[in-house]
Amino acid sequence: MKKHNFSAGPCILPQEVFKEASQAILDYNDSGLSVIEISHRSKDFVDIMEEARSLALELLGLEGKGYKALFLQGGASTQFLMTAYNLLQTKAGYINTGSWSDKAVKEAKLFGEVLEIASSKDANYNYIPKGYEVPGDLDYIHCTSNNTIFGTQIKDFPTSNIPLVCDMSSDIFSRQLDFSKFSLIYAGAQKNMGPAGTTLVVVKEDILGKINRQIPSMLDYQVHISKGSMFNTPPVFAVYTSMLTLRWLKNLGGIAAMEELNEKKAKLIYSEIDVNPLFKGFAAKEDRSNMNATFTLINENLKETFDTMCKEGGINGVNGHRSVGGYRASMYNAMTIESVAALVDIMGDLERKA
Amino acid sequence: MKKHNFSAGPCILPQEVFKEASQAILDYNDSGLSVIEISHRSKDFVDIMEEARSLALELLGLEGKGYKALFLQGGASTQFLMTAYNLLQTKAGYINTGSWSDKAVKEAKLFGEVLEIASSKDANYNYIPKGYEVPGDLDYIHCTSNNTIFGTQIKDFPTSNIPLVCDMSSDIFSRQLDFSKFSLIYAGAQKNMGPAGTTLVVVKEDILGKINRQIPSMLDYQVHISKGSMFNTPPVFAVYTSMLTLRWLKNLGGIAAMEELNEKKAKLIYSEIDVNPLFKGFAAKEDRSNMNATFTLINENLKETFDTMCKEGGINGVNGHRSVGGYRASMYNAMTIESVAALVDIMGDLERKA
Repeated sequence: MKKHNFSAGPCILPQEVFKEASQAILDYNDSGLSVIEISHRSKDFVDIMEEARSLALELLGLEGKGYKALFLQGGASTQFLMTAYNLLQTKAGYINTGSWSDKAVKEAKLFGEVLEIASSKDANYNYIPKGYEVPGDLDYIHCTSNNTIFGTQIKDFPTSNIPLVCDMSSDIFSRQLDFSKFSLIYAGAQKNMGPAGTTLVVVKEDILGKINRQIPSMLDYQVHISKGSMFNTPPVFAVYTSMLTLRWLKNLGGIAAMEELNEKKAKLIYSEIDVNPLFKGFAAKEDRSNMNATFTLINENLKETFDTMCKEGGINGVNGHRSVGGYRASMYNAMTIESVAALVDIMGDLERKA
Repeated sequence: MKKHNFSAGPCILPQEVFKEASQAILDYNDSGLSVIEISHRSKDFVDIMEEARSLALELLGLEGKGYKALFLQGGASTQFLMTAYNLLQTKAGYINTGSWSDKAVKEAKLFGEVLEIASSKDANYNYIPKGYEVPGDLDYIHCTSNNTIFGTQIKDFPTSNIPLVCDMSSDIFSRQLDFSKFSLIYAGAQKNMGPAGTTLVVVKEDILGKINRQIPSMLDYQVHISKGSMFNTPPVFAVYTSMLTLRWLKNLGGIAAMEELNEKKAKLIYSEIDVNPLFKGFAAKEDRSNMNATFTLINENLKETFDTMCKEGGINGVNGHRSVGGYRASMYNAMTIESVAALVDIMGDLERKA
């Protein structure tokens, strides 16, 4: 049976990437060696790393604009502390739009004053705060572009002269933005870019080196930049597979083509949620995420029936996060519109049955 | 042509592990989903993580002795700072036996006083220091069990009541030791355990929580222990493939069987180095590593001939590190004795030719 993988992350990747990665584990490029047994200093791997870094900048439209791309380890959770370690001298402003923002705030507080300049915690993060003021004396502003758990997405980012740092883990490469408005972008690979195990960091070099704090080498962006993202052994397989996914994205037409598809998928499911009397959306309509649609059954008694229908239809990973409940359909770049249609059909079938 | 992969790391893994990992990228356990697209909170992955953690403790003989095994990210380089962040209150002692020890010293100095209680830097690390005194007022002693670059290996570890921390990146699971003498062991996976991208940490819980320092969550061993090594998304593929390699090791007979094979392989190459008049070993004989044999050609004019013969014989990755020069044959657990014999044959052929 065909599976439709709506998992929130790690999650679906393009089928052709699975095939190519699987083959490379056996024999990379007809070398007679696996991609995971070659030296990371070999030409073969250095080429992979350089292609991954260069594709990331190219797809984001940031080539030649003073940015560097790094493939690090430790997930966004490590970036919560690294951003503060490298950038927080006195005071930083955080926009709290969900659990991940909240965790970022917690880690940053170890390094300086943290001001929550806006928060939607009061309504279990079901909306994106707007109309807040940005103080002028901040080292940086931190935000989370997409909130996987709650299904909200920032459409308008704060504008100011203060460096903007953004956790784009769950929507990078999914929509067109002027990425040059951000001074630092980070994203765990395991949604739109690759398998778990590497984190993309895109940083504008001129914001670094401005604080009075000694930074351990592995936590220092400048160290990683100076070594071409190879200060120590990189997570070879995760970088290789991310590179394959970025190649796939470029061949499809880049972020513009992807955005078009993502909008179609999102429209399909949100229309069903709004039309079908059995379901209710969780997030405020104007802040809905194109990556993660969160919704609940109005009548909880239908849960077992709906869950069984999903299982029989090959629908995987639609259980909501415990802090929201209900359902969450994650529709990252590699998800086809056919898979979203399969879920929407089941939602319609439930209405006809009930 | 069959390749003999002597790469220092990332390096050879068992062929059956490559096969199983390659298959799991396409379809894990007949689930219809790739192992890298399933949720890390799914039963399938939680089982993988638990088996990996439990196999690590079992193979080291540390089950039921107050230790926890963690699969983290960031390599040994991150452990250089994490050990100090978690354990260094006032003063720590480091045994400096090579470039990696030296880097560990550098990172630890950011957190307290670091005493080099022994060093072989005076002779480009070609031996293991002995007969040094261990002060009684240290928070811990740090050592590196095997020095990949220089081809030396500690045979006798310091004994004292002070917690012993050891970087075993390049020889863990290769020889029998009383592992309960160590309070904390860490090892990057990419030699004897799996692909690059995860780091095994085995820590005795009673040494933690004794310092007055706030530790960022991702750098805090206690946080990772409390979450069963799943505080954040783990590096799924690297953990899975490490688990497969640990299973393979257990099926072969564990560390005892592996040690026997490793001694045979080491004896084979060191005998050739000592007997063949064209070659000279780099490391002091009594400190020679069973994992990495370092040697040079006495007559540098033969280099081109030898390199060509190696290439024609399918010998991969025997170039020495730039700080030693010459050659380095890394013979990790997954290397067969036939591959070592292939290299030894070529060394013998060179003598007959020259």
